[in-house]
Amino acid sequence: MNTFGHLFRATTFGESHGPAIGVVIDGCPPGIPLNEADIQPLMERRRPGRGPTTSPRNELDQVEILSGVFEGQTTGMPIAILIRSTGAESRDYESLRSVVRPGHADRTYQQKYGIRDHRGGGRSSGRETAARVAAGAVAMKCLGLKGMTIRSRITEVHGVSDPALFDAEILKAKERGDSVGGCLEVIADGCPPGLGDPVFGKLDAAIAGAMMGIGAVKGVEIGEGFASAGMYGSEWNDPLFRSGPATNHAGGILGGISNGEPIYLRLAIKPTPSVSIPQETVDLDGTERVIEIKGRHDPCIVPRAQVVAECMLALVLIDALLMRDRFSGFV
Amino acid sequence: MNTFGHLFRATTFGESHGPAIGVVIDGCPPGIPLNEADIQPLMERRRPGRGPTTSPRNELDQVEILSGVFEGQTTGMPIAILIRSTGAESRDYESLRSVVRPGHADRTYQQKYGIRDHRGGGRSSGRETAARVAAGAVAMKCLGLKGMTIRSRITEVHGVSDPALFDAEILKAKERGDSVGGCLEVIADGCPPGLGDPVFGKLDAAIAGAMMGIGAVKGVEIGEGFASAGMYGSEWNDPLFRSGPATNHAGGILGGISNGEPIYLRLAIKPTPSVSIPQETVDLDGTERVIEIKGRHDPCIVPRAQVVAECMLALVLIDALLMRDRFSGFV
Amino acid sequence: MNTFGHLFRATTFGESHGPAIGVVIDGCPPGIPLNEADIQPLMERRRPGRGPTTSPRNELDQVEILSGVFEGQTTGMPIAILIRSTGAESRDYESLRSVVRPGHADRTYQQKYGIRDHRGGGRSSGRETAARVAAGAVAMKCLGLKGMTIRSRITEVHGVSDPALFDAEILKAKERGDSVGGCLEVIADGCPPGLGDPVFGKLDAAIAGAMMGIGAVKGVEIGEGFASAGMYGSEWNDPLFRSGPATNHAGGILGGISNGEPIYLRLAIKPTPSVSIPQETVDLDGTERVIEIKGRHDPCIVPRAQVVAECMLALVLIDALLMRDRFSGFV
Amino acid sequence: MNTFGHLFRATTFGESHGPAIGVVIDGCPPGIPLNEADIQPLMERRRPGRGPTTSPRNELDQVEILSGVFEGQTTGMPIAILIRSTGAESRDYESLRSVVRPGHADRTYQQKYGIRDHRGGGRSSGRETAARVAAGAVAMKCLGLKGMTIRSRITEVHGVSDPALFDAEILKAKERGDSVGGCLEVIADGCPPGLGDPVFGKLDAAIAGAMMGIGAVKGVEIGEGFASAGMYGSEWNDPLFRSGPATNHAGGILGGISNGEPIYLRLAIKPTPSVSIPQETVDLDGTERVIEIKGRHDPCIVPRAQVVAECMLALVLIDALLMRDRFSGFV
Repeated sequence: MNTFGHLFRATTFGESHGPAIGVVIDGCPPGIPLNEADIQPLMERRRPGRGPTTSPRNELDQVEILSGVFEGQTTGMPIAILIRSTGAESRDYESLRSVVRPGHADRTYQQKYGIRDHRGGGRSSGRETAARVAAGAVAMKCLGLKGMTIRSRITEVHGVSDPALFDAEILKAKERGDSVGGCLEVIADGCPPGLGDPVFGKLDAAIAGAMMGIGAVKGVEIGEGFASAGMYGSEWNDPLFRSGPATNHAGGILGGISNGEPIYLRLAIKPTPSVSIPQETVDLDGTERVIEIKGRHDPCIVPRAQVVAECMLALVLIDALLMRDRFSGFV
Repeated sequence: MNTFGHLFRATTFGESHGPAIGVVIDGCPPGIPLNEADIQPLMERRRPGRGPTTSPRNELDQVEILSGVFEGQTTGMPIAILIRSTGAESRDYESLRSVVRPGHADRTYQQKYGIRDHRGGGRSSGRETAARVAAGAVAMKCLGLKGMTIRSRITEVHGVSDPALFDAEILKAKERGDSVGGCLEVIADGCPPGLGDPVFGKLDAAIAGAMMGIGAVKGVEIGEGFASAGMYGSEWNDPLFRSGPATNHAGGILGGISNGEPIYLRLAIKPTPSVSIPQETVDLDGTERVIEIKGRHDPCIVPRAQVVAECMLALVLIDALLMRDRFSGFV
Repeated sequence: MNTFGHLFRATTFGESHGPAIGVVIDGCPPGIPLNEADIQPLMERRRPGRGPTTSPRNELDQVEILSGVFEGQTTGMPIAILIRSTGAESRDYESLRSVVRPGHADRTYQQKYGIRDHRGGGRSSGRETAARVAAGAVAMKCLGLKGMTIRSRITEVHGVSDPALFDAEILKAKERGDSVGGCLEVIADGCPPGLGDPVFGKLDAAIAGAMMGIGAVKGVEIGEGFASAGMYGSEWNDPLFRSGPATNHAGGILGGISNGEPIYLRLAIKPTPSVSIPQETVDLDGTERVIEIKGRHDPCIVPRAQVVAECMLALVLIDALLMRDRFSGFV
Repeated sequence: MNTFGHLFRATTFGESHGPAIGVVIDGCPPGIPLNEADIQPLMERRRPGRGPTTSPRNELDQVEILSGVFEGQTTGMPIAILIRSTGAESRDYESLRSVVRPGHADRTYQQKYGIRDHRGGGRSSGRETAARVAAGAVAMKCLGLKGMTIRSRITEVHGVSDPALFDAEILKAKERGDSVGGCLEVIADGCPPGLGDPVFGKLDAAIAGAMMGIGAVKGVEIGEGFASAGMYGSEWNDPLFRSGPATNHAGGILGGISNGEPIYLRLAIKPTPSVSIPQETVDLDGTERVIEIKGRHDPCIVPRAQVVAECMLALVLIDALLMRDRFSGFV
């Protein structure tokens, strides 16, 4: 279950404090120009430590392409991308070996597997998303050749929707030793009609699954989303003209298939669970205790989640594009 | 893409006005007591025509089990369930052959496949969900043997959250020749810890994909969902005690894996796209026109969507349960 | 595991003596002309009871298309095909409820599932292949539009390779109350280059898996097959000229990918396990006994296996063709 | 299509002369003791250059585990294993950029993908099997904990079945500048009943697909295999006694499910296609020419194929074991 996609498949691996993380992309079309410089800028956008509101950890996240690219072009063979870890100090985490951090996956992993790498969250760490971003960068390269682009913006931080106040909310949380959540909007422009398959392969179903698979995401809405629940059908339906639909309440998808309009969605992102405010918790053996989580943690993960969400959308779209084209010899 | 699930796989087939719809379930555990009477009551809950606020169509939806059950027990072999159509009058739809109904999948299907069964929406009709309900009924039978139950309730109709006013909102829409949407909450009780797999197999990701795959669903939130975006981390995190977590903002899932608490989620359901109010639209050839959709259509699909959402959640949970147990020989 | 294929997926269901068997085909391209008359002739080729050397059972095997076809063309939606059973007399099999027939799946199914439909072999009966043939007929229809055809011939019966003696060998076995095996050659003509994917998706790997998945098949060889083991590399390699390869020891596949030459393979088919000669066996509880299997059984399954093998090859090829075309937007 | 398995999934990557090859194993059970020393001995068995009859290339094939193992035990998370390349001299292959080597995948890859890494066969090189062996070593470690073991032996070289003559046959070919094929027998001992699923998930189907997916394999037979075609049913059927079957013509599998007897199979392996004897061939542009392939090539790949075949069988068996156990909560 560490593989995403049907035809453009990304398999990620690696733990927060292991020697490396990475991804193997299987099913990338051949002939796509690709090198490390296509990937690195997106890695930078995901990287922590770039401002007062983010974590000061200094990961380099240098990518190395190990396979699947020959003389600057993809070959259709699996593309393995490796990101070596640097500077991980696992002794920082020794005290967390047997404690259950509230809001984290510590106990669910321990219960399920009977063993876990507790250092920095191990596999459940946000660090895993670096591998997704590497895969997403390759997907975006393919999409770009077909005229598709993906962007996002923060629409809310801690209940506040005025962008001028976002940093203030985050800094306030940081000073409290606390964290805050927020909302993102993600938009794909230039999508052709015909992406998505009926019933269980709907494009919106794939998007929702992809987005909710990002650790911090707790809600997904497409097009009008939850506002749809308060609308009349005659309002919601997008009137059609020869020139196209007059509105886009559907968010670019009807019956699970893209209609050529921009695809847009919004995500609810929970506050980072690591806070230094004292919290009541238990040890793995059930002993009750109070925990204060020290260390370098983002007070708000929303800015860094942007590129991850964009990359997951890119992975959904390239997969849907290849799925659509399977019928190209017949349609 | 008409198959749902990894180990408990349901493949549905059939069009609204074809001779039959149905489902093949592959991977159901053997030894489960099962007969048609286990399935029929859920079919009745999904069936239209049971009150003034629903469509007066009279489908019988009688299920027939064709395989996979021997002497009242499942055998582990594929369970095929057939639902013959009755009383479909496809001539009602002849006028819709070349028109694009706003809010429907008419044009996206036509563009993608170059052909479609236009009668009653064909494959994109809500009628397809009858096959999902049949599959979900089998999933629920399995879950019940493990102490899991699923329920749901309507939390909002057309922006109104007082249940006493739901029928009034629906009737008001019906009188206008219009339709309304609403919200559902779905809850699974009795879920054991350990359901869900890391990264792309997260239980919440599977739930979100399953729910957004229901035609009318435009938003999904799990646990605190969108409200998470306005909370501090110290509020959101569920404090842990020996007796369990004090709250359940996580909705029963941490790190993508169930923690033994109730799993709950909310869905946004759009208003039924078929309304008799005149709408501007185009024909498949682009000619602009006005359409008034007559016929038997639910002014609000929310009540009938309840059982579909419950069944999809059942399909996610039984699949996750079998996935968890694959390691049973080792853990 | 009752689904075959990645993009053109056939899911079969049904037991020998249940009310029906059938198949759901998901991923068939749209726009393919199709009706029952395209399928029925292949069903007839598989049907028993057509000569002195086959079983006198009289199954009608009338197919009914339930979905996925509209006005004589496929729509890209799942195609469900139903074959109702007729004349099954399950009381014939009551005596076999607790006995283990040598060479049959009786005990392996019972051990694995704890329950089985023992009537006529239940799910492990050769009758299940009727559903595969229905699916294969649809695949062949698609392949035919692309100029591909599939044929087969019997190359050996009971160690004898002179076709004039095949019937005599079979009749001799029948008179003994025994059965015999044989070999088939299956050939696909008109295959374009590019079918098959590297490493685990090799076309020959898919073919071998498909063929060995036919109950009676115990060996598969492609191109020169086992004879390759006795050849020098300089003999085996097919010399290449501008006009194409001078020989075809590779059987039309190099590196797992078709090269445009005819694809050919040979199958070893074991003798039918049901023989009326007394055999030593045990009951499910371990009691030793002697069994004489009476009833209508083919003394040699090889002639009927031809159409099944052809259909499985068709399913492999159409799947590989759709897989190849997924890159059509890029290559 | 570079992933093998359903629940224990191995995804390989890498080209012959790229910077590294490797594998990501997803779905390995947690709690398995594992380190590099468990894998390295199998890598040594696959490695060339160990005797007068093998290629003198000196690859070190040092494995590095990058993830999924914590404090000496698997965690259930993806296990990435990396093998850095050393000493590849790609200038050796510059002359082969545009020529099509007979018996190789050069032209099929070029036609399908429009681009290929021609150095040493690129992705189609036998070097890729090193990654499979690494994955197989992990599978064997799991199987060993359940009492299963896998072994193999060479049964034929160049048509000769006396082991005393194998080396002589290989050396004779080497002196000619030629190559020879042969046959292997592979045996799994200690397999429990219940491995394999009906119809398309048969254990023998999975084995055949896995084996034919090894580049040099051109034939697979299970149990009596092709000899079955010459037997009477009364001979072939294994008589059953309380103590078990008296014979094992079935090769340990009945109806696609293991019966607890040893599983055995035989493989036909073609002669290495790289021979220094002059061969007629064409360039990619169709120009006819003669080629003499110099360099370090095994005159017979059969000895090195043993460990690859054993590893592929291990991958099939561990996958089937996890598939069987999915029902453990119910059966």
